[in-house]
Formats: sequence, C-alpha cells, structure tokens
Amino acid sequence: MSRQSFADVDCSVAQAAQQVGDKWTLVILRDAFNGITRFDDFERHLGVASNVLAARLAGLVEAGILQRRPVPGDGRAVDYKLTPKGHELFPLVVFLQQWGDRWMPKAQGARLQVLDRQTRRPVRPVQVLSADGQPLTAHDTRYSIPGGGSQVMQQLQDLVARKPSPPFS
Amino acid sequence: MSRQSFADVDCSVAQAAQQVGDKWTLVILRDAFNGITRFDDFERHLGVASNVLAARLAGLVEAGILQRRPVPGDGRAVDYKLTPKGHELFPLVVFLQQWGDRWMPKAQGARLQVLDRQTRRPVRPVQVLSADGQPLTAHDTRYSIPGGGSQVMQQLQDLVARKPSPPFS
Repeated sequence: MSRQSFADVDCSVAQAAQQVGDKWTLVILRDAFNGITRFDDFERHLGVASNVLAARLAGLVEAGILQRRPVPGDGRAVDYKLTPKGHELFPLVVFLQQWGDRWMPKAQGARLQVLDRQTRRPVRPVQVLSADGQPLTAHDTRYSIPGGGSQVMQQLQDLVARKPSPPFS
Repeated sequence: MSRQSFADVDCSVAQAAQQVGDKWTLVILRDAFNGITRFDDFERHLGVASNVLAARLAGLVEAGILQRRPVPGDGRAVDYKLTPKGHELFPLVVFLQQWGDRWMPKAQGARLQVLDRQTRRPVRPVQVLSADGQPLTAHDTRYSIPGGGSQVMQQLQDLVARKPSPPFS
C-alpha cells in the first residue's frame, strides 16, 4: 500500500513534507529568503537543471509558498516571491543552516551567521520552547490529540503503546 | 551544470537538505520521535514501499541521524534509534507540524499538539528569536559571512547586490 502523495494523509508533518520535503525545494527557499526572484538567477546560483527548477517552482506556486508575478515594465519577465505562507518558513531555513553548521562543520568554522538587522547580534538557535520559554527536547514532551485524533496518529499511538520502552527513549 | 548531490556544496542549508530534504525521510523522523524503531512498524505505519523505506533508513544511518542496532535477546531483529544528531532535529519536526497545521488546517481544528510533559501546556511556536528573545522575521535579519564566506554565498550576494530591491523584500 505504497503512497505517492501525502495530500490525503491526516498529519500536518506529512502535509508539510509533501510541500517542502525536497532538497531542491529547500535550497530554492534559501535563495528566495536571500532575495533571489528570477528563474535565471535561481538556475545560475543553484546549478540546477532547468526542468527540475521549473517543476519545483511550479510546485511552490501551487502550494501557495511562492507567488509568480509579471515584472512591472518588463513584458516577458516574471518573478517569484515568498507569500505570507512562504515567509513563515523562515525558521525552517534558519534551523537547517544552524543544524548543518553544528553537524557538518567546515574546518574554517561557521559558514554564515544570521544576524538581527538592528543589533547585529546573531539570532538564537531555533529550538522548541516551553510556554515559559525553556528549551525542550523530545524527551521533555508528549503528544496530545484533541478530539481523539486522526487515524494516522491513533495507529502510531497503538504501535508505540505495545513497545516495552517509553516514547522518545 | 546540474548537480546530483549537495555533498560538496559549501552551504549548511544544502548539506542539511541533502540529508533530510525528502518527504519520506521527514515522516520517518516524525515516527522515530514518536518511538517507532522497527522496520516493520515504520512500513506499516507509513504505507511506504519497503525498498523506499530501506533506502531512506540506510541514508539516515549513513548520515549519522539514526543508529541501527541489534535488539538484545532477539537474534535477527534490529532497531533504528535517533542519535544525538538525529535528536537535534526535533525543532524541524515540530516546526513542520505547526506550520502544516497553520496553513493546511483540517475543518475539525488542530490535528495534534506537542505538550510540555511536565506542565502539559503546549510548546511555543518554533520561531527565529533575537539574542534577547524577540521573534524575528526574515525582514528583521541579515546574513553575515565570517571570513568573507564561501563561493556559493558570494555568488548569492553578487546576485542580490545587483537587484533594485533590498534582500528579503
């Protein structure tokens, strides 16, 4: 019962993974956050085959993450800009950059820092925080399924429930 | 000049995208954080073809995100558990869940909540925070490249520099 699409899977992670779970998509988003808007610039910067780039941009437009617009005053040109839904992916890109730097470091140290534009101080590591702002690991958390939850999550709970070890161990 | 692998790309986002930028990989990670460790349980829960699952699990082991270990007392069984590098992906999974819920909501409301195990209060939205803890959007930030930066980032800066609009606009 292999799935090709997660579109009908009742899980937010699967829905999100369907839209951004692709390596090219992630570096396109990185570049979009850095101000790149034109097909040719993405293509040149990423070293990506134009058919792959076209498919990924179309997918991001279809998902409502990028908006494709004619460039004013340039009859043939279009640009791709982040929508509000796309802009909210900023923590994802910063997280990947920080995690990548921690675990795949270069000999010469950090590749890049994200700075607060006003103070010029680096942003904090992207973390999961408790309601009162304390960093939490997976061990410190549990899932709650309002209203009994979806079939997917119920299956998952059933699988975990019959294990000898607690979740997140 | 199309690329098949990002392994040699001098960018932390690309390095991270190479390891986790795949929709199956992301839902495997979700399940790993929920305590699933066995091949058969991943297969059953995800509805994934066994060859796809085997390839993704092998990639996660190779990347040092999952550790494959014989199950004590069960000669043939192995389990897959998150390494410290894998555990640090927790904010990624929680972010995707929260972003998915915000932008692809179900009619009946939130699918799932991540709770602080001690207080049972929901965790905060995963955000980019300034050094003093204020939420930042991409507009509030800029990149700094220590030591002049990589070729990839320099190319990106050059592309952005010749645009009429500022980065992140």
